[in-house]
Amino acid sequence: MSVEFRTRRRVEWADTDQAGIVHFARFFVFMEAAEHAFWRSLGLSVHSECDGDIISWPRLTAECEYFRPVTFEDVLDIHVHLEKQGKKSLSFRLDFHCDGEQIAQGRLKIACCICNPGEAIRAIPIPDFITRKLAAHP
Amino acid sequence: MSVEFRTRRRVEWADTDQAGIVHFARFFVFMEAAEHAFWRSLGLSVHSECDGDIISWPRLTAECEYFRPVTFEDVLDIHVHLEKQGKKSLSFRLDFHCDGEQIAQGRLKIACCICNPGEAIRAIPIPDFITRKLAAHP
Amino acid sequence: MSVEFRTRRRVEWADTDQAGIVHFARFFVFMEAAEHAFWRSLGLSVHSECDGDIISWPRLTAECEYFRPVTFEDVLDIHVHLEKQGKKSLSFRLDFHCDGEQIAQGRLKIACCICNPGEAIRAIPIPDFITRKLAAHP
Amino acid sequence: MSVEFRTRRRVEWADTDQAGIVHFARFFVFMEAAEHAFWRSLGLSVHSECDGDIISWPRLTAECEYFRPVTFEDVLDIHVHLEKQGKKSLSFRLDFHCDGEQIAQGRLKIACCICNPGEAIRAIPIPDFITRKLAAHP
Repeated sequence: MSVEFRTRRRVEWADTDQAGIVHFARFFVFMEAAEHAFWRSLGLSVHSECDGDIISWPRLTAECEYFRPVTFEDVLDIHVHLEKQGKKSLSFRLDFHCDGEQIAQGRLKIACCICNPGEAIRAIPIPDFITRKLAAHP
Repeated sequence: MSVEFRTRRRVEWADTDQAGIVHFARFFVFMEAAEHAFWRSLGLSVHSECDGDIISWPRLTAECEYFRPVTFEDVLDIHVHLEKQGKKSLSFRLDFHCDGEQIAQGRLKIACCICNPGEAIRAIPIPDFITRKLAAHP
Repeated sequence: MSVEFRTRRRVEWADTDQAGIVHFARFFVFMEAAEHAFWRSLGLSVHSECDGDIISWPRLTAECEYFRPVTFEDVLDIHVHLEKQGKKSLSFRLDFHCDGEQIAQGRLKIACCICNPGEAIRAIPIPDFITRKLAAHP
Repeated sequence: MSVEFRTRRRVEWADTDQAGIVHFARFFVFMEAAEHAFWRSLGLSVHSECDGDIISWPRLTAECEYFRPVTFEDVLDIHVHLEKQGKKSLSFRLDFHCDGEQIAQGRLKIACCICNPGEAIRAIPIPDFITRKLAAHP
């Protein structure tokens, strides 16, 4: 089984900085948005209610390696790979390409948590309804 | 009575864009942060709990006029003026200076609201404990 | 002649704040991105080179009125209207709707400028190649 | 020789997200701003002119591990350590504490580059005037 997903986004003016390129921290927003589009492709949301609890996925680690700068109005191809499915966490690799050339590679490790307002966040085993959707991924 | 407050912030790299200047939308974050520093100067927070309710101040309108660009590591002097105190709202003017020259002028109109999680946001008259703090402002 | 353009965007997690709604400053990024998509629809870019000069459009004023909060994964319909075409500036109105209901209305006034690196920014009359594209807008 | 630097910043409303905590990507902006304050503490800027060239420090890699969430108005103590000084690059570790407890740890690897407008970015050996300042760090 290989769970993967592709999406695309155009660099916006507000993504750039004084060096004329995309600011490095924006790649983490791009990664997150791509991961969230992956959830939607499964018919899910990264932030959902289940039996009265809010289930969400705080980030445990985030990293990115930058190969080549990109700039305003460039179109980024983003390839989301689910690299590892743990009992309570998921690890994604995100490959960024522009004009066929790889420009960055990122990783996110996220934890399945109950995030009810007013309560401490607590990690839980990934619920069955999510595991089933991941397993059924084409 | 004239309620005013002064603060200062240095332009960060992430505030700039490809034109080599501060991105115009960042001024709204600067305004908000200056207003929040004003609340702290009163011993309050823009987002507080009172009798079990979350009192917060959603923005009704926000505007900014830009006179001169500023860039990385410029230090901005921000002058917060409470221009109008309504029954349920406050109107602020924010003047930005850099090196003694005015670079921008913004306005925020904010509404006093109960913002409890899971409930619709609703406007309320400004509570007495806040009105008293505003009146006692030096 | 009525120059207008429609686009759409989905609220991302990073657009939200602790109140569980889109942060008010993000609307200015949404406005700008919609305006830039309008330029692309004309076969232009907001930031282009012409006869060795960089022509760009710094913002003179920006404002937004907020009617109703929106939240994560809401889809915003954004309607761009060119309200006024001056000799050196353009004024846009941007109407935001979500699920058929208007949630915000913004305005941007932008100036046509030469923004060459290392030179002071200076306003110029809108060049003919741009005026012609605006006039030919369907 | 141990090159280190301490700074502090207060979480702003725009740093938070719908989970009521600081958005994970903001930590990269916090890291960068702390690193830039470190440069200023040396009497330098991360972005400077030298003999007609713009010397800047694009990021090669960036990573962060998150231990505990923080929220609006929390004050973060940020400890910048220069972990490795290469011929053309620097590696920083950034430790974040809040109320005495470690909340995150990040790393940035940055390359010394000439970033002239209109030219391709190219890495260079760290210039002597920078190496001397690093060596003289108290």
